[in-house]
Amino acid sequence: MRKFMDEDFLLDTGAARELFHGYAEGCPIIDYHNHLSTKDMAERRTFSNLTQIWLEGDHYKWRAMRGCGVDESLITGKETTDYEKFLAWAETVSRIPGCPVYHWTHLELQRYFGIYEPLTPATAPGIWEKTCEMLKDPGYDAISLLEMQNVKALCTTDDPADSLEWHFKLAEDHITEMRVLPSFRPDRYIALEAPAFKGAIADLEARNGDSIASLDNLKASLSKSLDRFDKAGCRGSDHGFSVFTYGRGDRADSAFKKAMAGEILTAEEIDDYRGEILRFLGAEYAKRGIAMQLHIGPLRNTNSHLYDIIGPDAGGDSVGGLTDIALVGYFLDDLVKAGTLPNTILYNANPADNMDYSTLAIDFAPKVKFGAAWWFCDNIRGMKAQTYELMETGAMAESVGMLTDSRSFTSFPRHEYFRRILCAALGELVETGQYPNDIPTLGRIVEDICWKNAVKFFRLD
Amino acid sequence: MRKFMDEDFLLDTGAARELFHGYAEGCPIIDYHNHLSTKDMAERRTFSNLTQIWLEGDHYKWRAMRGCGVDESLITGKETTDYEKFLAWAETVSRIPGCPVYHWTHLELQRYFGIYEPLTPATAPGIWEKTCEMLKDPGYDAISLLEMQNVKALCTTDDPADSLEWHFKLAEDHITEMRVLPSFRPDRYIALEAPAFKGAIADLEARNGDSIASLDNLKASLSKSLDRFDKAGCRGSDHGFSVFTYGRGDRADSAFKKAMAGEILTAEEIDDYRGEILRFLGAEYAKRGIAMQLHIGPLRNTNSHLYDIIGPDAGGDSVGGLTDIALVGYFLDDLVKAGTLPNTILYNANPADNMDYSTLAIDFAPKVKFGAAWWFCDNIRGMKAQTYELMETGAMAESVGMLTDSRSFTSFPRHEYFRRILCAALGELVETGQYPNDIPTLGRIVEDICWKNAVKFFRLD
Amino acid sequence: MRKFMDEDFLLDTGAARELFHGYAEGCPIIDYHNHLSTKDMAERRTFSNLTQIWLEGDHYKWRAMRGCGVDESLITGKETTDYEKFLAWAETVSRIPGCPVYHWTHLELQRYFGIYEPLTPATAPGIWEKTCEMLKDPGYDAISLLEMQNVKALCTTDDPADSLEWHFKLAEDHITEMRVLPSFRPDRYIALEAPAFKGAIADLEARNGDSIASLDNLKASLSKSLDRFDKAGCRGSDHGFSVFTYGRGDRADSAFKKAMAGEILTAEEIDDYRGEILRFLGAEYAKRGIAMQLHIGPLRNTNSHLYDIIGPDAGGDSVGGLTDIALVGYFLDDLVKAGTLPNTILYNANPADNMDYSTLAIDFAPKVKFGAAWWFCDNIRGMKAQTYELMETGAMAESVGMLTDSRSFTSFPRHEYFRRILCAALGELVETGQYPNDIPTLGRIVEDICWKNAVKFFRLD
Repeated sequence: MRKFMDEDFLLDTGAARELFHGYAEGCPIIDYHNHLSTKDMAERRTFSNLTQIWLEGDHYKWRAMRGCGVDESLITGKETTDYEKFLAWAETVSRIPGCPVYHWTHLELQRYFGIYEPLTPATAPGIWEKTCEMLKDPGYDAISLLEMQNVKALCTTDDPADSLEWHFKLAEDHITEMRVLPSFRPDRYIALEAPAFKGAIADLEARNGDSIASLDNLKASLSKSLDRFDKAGCRGSDHGFSVFTYGRGDRADSAFKKAMAGEILTAEEIDDYRGEILRFLGAEYAKRGIAMQLHIGPLRNTNSHLYDIIGPDAGGDSVGGLTDIALVGYFLDDLVKAGTLPNTILYNANPADNMDYSTLAIDFAPKVKFGAAWWFCDNIRGMKAQTYELMETGAMAESVGMLTDSRSFTSFPRHEYFRRILCAALGELVETGQYPNDIPTLGRIVEDICWKNAVKFFRLD
Repeated sequence: MRKFMDEDFLLDTGAARELFHGYAEGCPIIDYHNHLSTKDMAERRTFSNLTQIWLEGDHYKWRAMRGCGVDESLITGKETTDYEKFLAWAETVSRIPGCPVYHWTHLELQRYFGIYEPLTPATAPGIWEKTCEMLKDPGYDAISLLEMQNVKALCTTDDPADSLEWHFKLAEDHITEMRVLPSFRPDRYIALEAPAFKGAIADLEARNGDSIASLDNLKASLSKSLDRFDKAGCRGSDHGFSVFTYGRGDRADSAFKKAMAGEILTAEEIDDYRGEILRFLGAEYAKRGIAMQLHIGPLRNTNSHLYDIIGPDAGGDSVGGLTDIALVGYFLDDLVKAGTLPNTILYNANPADNMDYSTLAIDFAPKVKFGAAWWFCDNIRGMKAQTYELMETGAMAESVGMLTDSRSFTSFPRHEYFRRILCAALGELVETGQYPNDIPTLGRIVEDICWKNAVKFFRLD
Repeated sequence: MRKFMDEDFLLDTGAARELFHGYAEGCPIIDYHNHLSTKDMAERRTFSNLTQIWLEGDHYKWRAMRGCGVDESLITGKETTDYEKFLAWAETVSRIPGCPVYHWTHLELQRYFGIYEPLTPATAPGIWEKTCEMLKDPGYDAISLLEMQNVKALCTTDDPADSLEWHFKLAEDHITEMRVLPSFRPDRYIALEAPAFKGAIADLEARNGDSIASLDNLKASLSKSLDRFDKAGCRGSDHGFSVFTYGRGDRADSAFKKAMAGEILTAEEIDDYRGEILRFLGAEYAKRGIAMQLHIGPLRNTNSHLYDIIGPDAGGDSVGGLTDIALVGYFLDDLVKAGTLPNTILYNANPADNMDYSTLAIDFAPKVKFGAAWWFCDNIRGMKAQTYELMETGAMAESVGMLTDSRSFTSFPRHEYFRRILCAALGELVETGQYPNDIPTLGRIVEDICWKNAVKFFRLD
């Protein structure tokens, strides 16, 4: 029996241990997609206790608690204290063997606090006390937590109407040597059919001092935002879709005007608009050397009760389906034909679609990559599956590795978690005679995946 | 090399063995969904031989035989004897390594008959003779077979037009201490588009003494049936769909009337009717504390030749697809909005959809559960996948475990089969250092999954 | 640690080794679906170097190189030498651990050239030299390469308008004792909506001396082609679909006439035509004892740049989805009803659909088989998954095993690769006590799968 989550956690062959400890462990982190607060960074936010760090906004943990039958008052309720919530979380943790948040929780206790005992109802009070004490140290502010994990670059997720003031402040005040860069996420301007569409346009008008009465106006204003993002060092953009649809017709401008006039739109009009704006943005990204990330597949806010009491990102999202991958292919190919395909990463929420996306990426290699195991797939089985997809298509050595996609300043051991799984997969090939015991060659591949490929792909050198 | 199917079958770590032998093995069985005959129970039916027990109605075994190229005359034909069929089955068994019916067959020989040798063409005659002899003992009637396996509660599957006479008789005559409860399965009244719809309505009218001329009449009559089921101790309902569709429009009553008048229906009318009747029943279930089970995904009766010679449940069903999981979400959310969501279990036939269902369940936790690996998934790989889904979503400790879904009185070692796989999965976490060697905590989780959670969920205490 | 790809490669249990070395290894190869050139065979084509053998037309390798970021000039470019391409390939190989082409490459070096060292940038020059020398030997021509691998029968893939001259020549000139038979692949005559449809009809008219003005004319001409194929020993046909659609309406003839007149067709017309021609061909196959193979799921030519510079089969194909499996069922069932269902194999490109196809096959057992792991699934994980599907449905012992689906004369160790995985899966059952240590019974199953079932299914005895 192996020791509980020790230094060789998940590394069950000699080759895996050599690859992890000799290569992966020391690599810097390039976290090219997350939802961290730049304001928290610029203000060097501090945290009083683990509940603030762990449970304030982490819907992964909320879902695990709900799955264990914990009452909502102890999850997101305002009527309970941080300590009560922490105890409820500790109770939950002991009841979720095999859950990624189980492993994340203990990796975080180990890496940030040097605590190696399991979190259980029995150990919870001691761990609470010890961590509260440690968190008083200024070495535990938002920036320090990131630096502790050797983070070299971060790409946050930002609305085109954002002023990026905190990004500029971070850079101007030389708060950290990390590169903290914005990512362009224009979902609100693409969801023509959403009730919030007109409000989004108004936000953009206000920010950019524009008057947006046509599709051309909108394009011009989005370009203006992209220039601002560019100035702040933007290297990536990000798009989310429950179901990816795509049109090639010429109804985009009229659809935009109908939407602004509050008229009902047909599915074809919506798709034409979506297609047109995506092709426009793809070309703009290509021109500026900004990578395009497509996140496809989750159902959002399925439980209206949770949405009503908590809002979006309440843990009421789940895995959807029924995107026709051919449409994603049409989009990429239209960019190829126009000579405007930017570096692109495809992420899918539904693991049943892994192979659609991993093989489509190769059709457009090397510009298009199959992205890391995302959201519901961000667990051992999901990361193994993604690793095998990459192995089988031959694209592993040039893959861009892991990202946290997280709102939490202590989520960075997820890179370590991924690296252990990667090294385990490669180690198994050596152990079973599928690959020679050539650790230096494999080690170079590991380093490329852990950070060097991402540096190249996002032009971060 | 491990011994053939011994007491540690599938238990390859020390922790797995401790969990199984120390906790799982002795747990009672709560079989909350099956298709057993209450008449057979009330009459304490006896069996002359293994062919009657195994091959009379078990389409799993028929399919394995067809897959092995056995002639239909030796499967369902009337022109062959029970012994000939048994020999064909024994021949088949030796040719289906890795098939769940291989394991079921031997678990049943071991648990019911104390026979530990493999069934092969060579051992078949001896096993036939020995089991025929043993079956003469009254200790092998339908009720005794169940009691042998420590079954505490059973939920059968029953039509709303059923009188439940055998359920009432079982209770009144104190035939067993097991609780044998009906489940409400109103599929025939939901399939508006089926040729059999009007006949179903006629059956319901006859049973309940009602005249059903409108949707409101139908609702009232179904409520009357639910009262009868309630009186018989009903704790669960059950719905089956090849493709789940769902409407929110107001064409339900007119659709019902058109169907009764033999008119052609549009897809939208059918969906509105289905939506309306499902929302109605959901609320009725919630009111009465009846859990709702949704079984989604199989294609039925694809081979019309099999259907013509054998009828439904001929082994001509297979795995379908293309349900839009968003629609299942809309249905559950409509019940949430109305405050009428009952305890619910989602079962999917297609393992590619596992994550759609397992993550949607968490959106509505704790009321909605991701159900056991069902039908085509009811095998080692399928149960492992379901176990991992539950682990990854954090919902394992509160899951409601296993059921047989079977027509056979000797199918109950399937619970043991599941429990071994569950303990193996947890044991592996301990063995690989992913969870501390805390057997009491894991043992409590195991007991909860094996039966205690089901008792709570179905209010069987 | 196991030695690199030695004689026990992938065989990690004693039972696996006994089954492979005692049974599988010596079995002849029946390669009932491939894309080999009969002209190359009839002319006993020779090869100057490994680049000609490996990289001339193998889009699997091209994709791996693109996935590794190799410049297209070193993949398909005319401006680089064979040796430069070989070095680029050697560099690629060392960077694709776990990729099936990694294993194929080394199995081919071992089996055809007796080279047991890994191909790396360091070993590449020596391997180039040695293999160039060996390839000068006439024992390395196209026919000899096949005979080296104990190939007993080959089914190539041929257009109904093909004269089959090379097939007839091969037989008449007694060039080899292998049976080299054509397969009937009428895709061009089914894709009514394709720009190339009218050209296909013209080809058929020219070949058969027919004038095709109606669907009946087309049927008659296809029958004439089938007679020619029959004379050449044809035992199989082959159909490819990105998405399988199917109609039962009566618009087939009018749709054909509209297509020939260059008019726009509705989806329903296309489906009716497709349905009618498939039902017709199914019956023709059944009459002649020709097996029908359905390959469903890939997206073709998604990257128009690759298509423009290289053409079809450029490595720009990937995994698609969204076929409604029910339609495949309707097609098979229509043939059942008409008494015209031929032996049939279902292959799916998307592993998420495995269970749809494997279970549908059993609905129509024993005539319908679930086919080998195909194309993107033709790797260890894919073959394991296919093996488990077959185990779980009980259809493994009657399955028709492996085929290369390849354009390469040295791709035949893929049969060995499959056989190792098959024996490993069975060996694991013995090792873990899931099946008795009855090697003779398992060995018979192995031999059946490796070649004997295919001989029966395709009437090759």
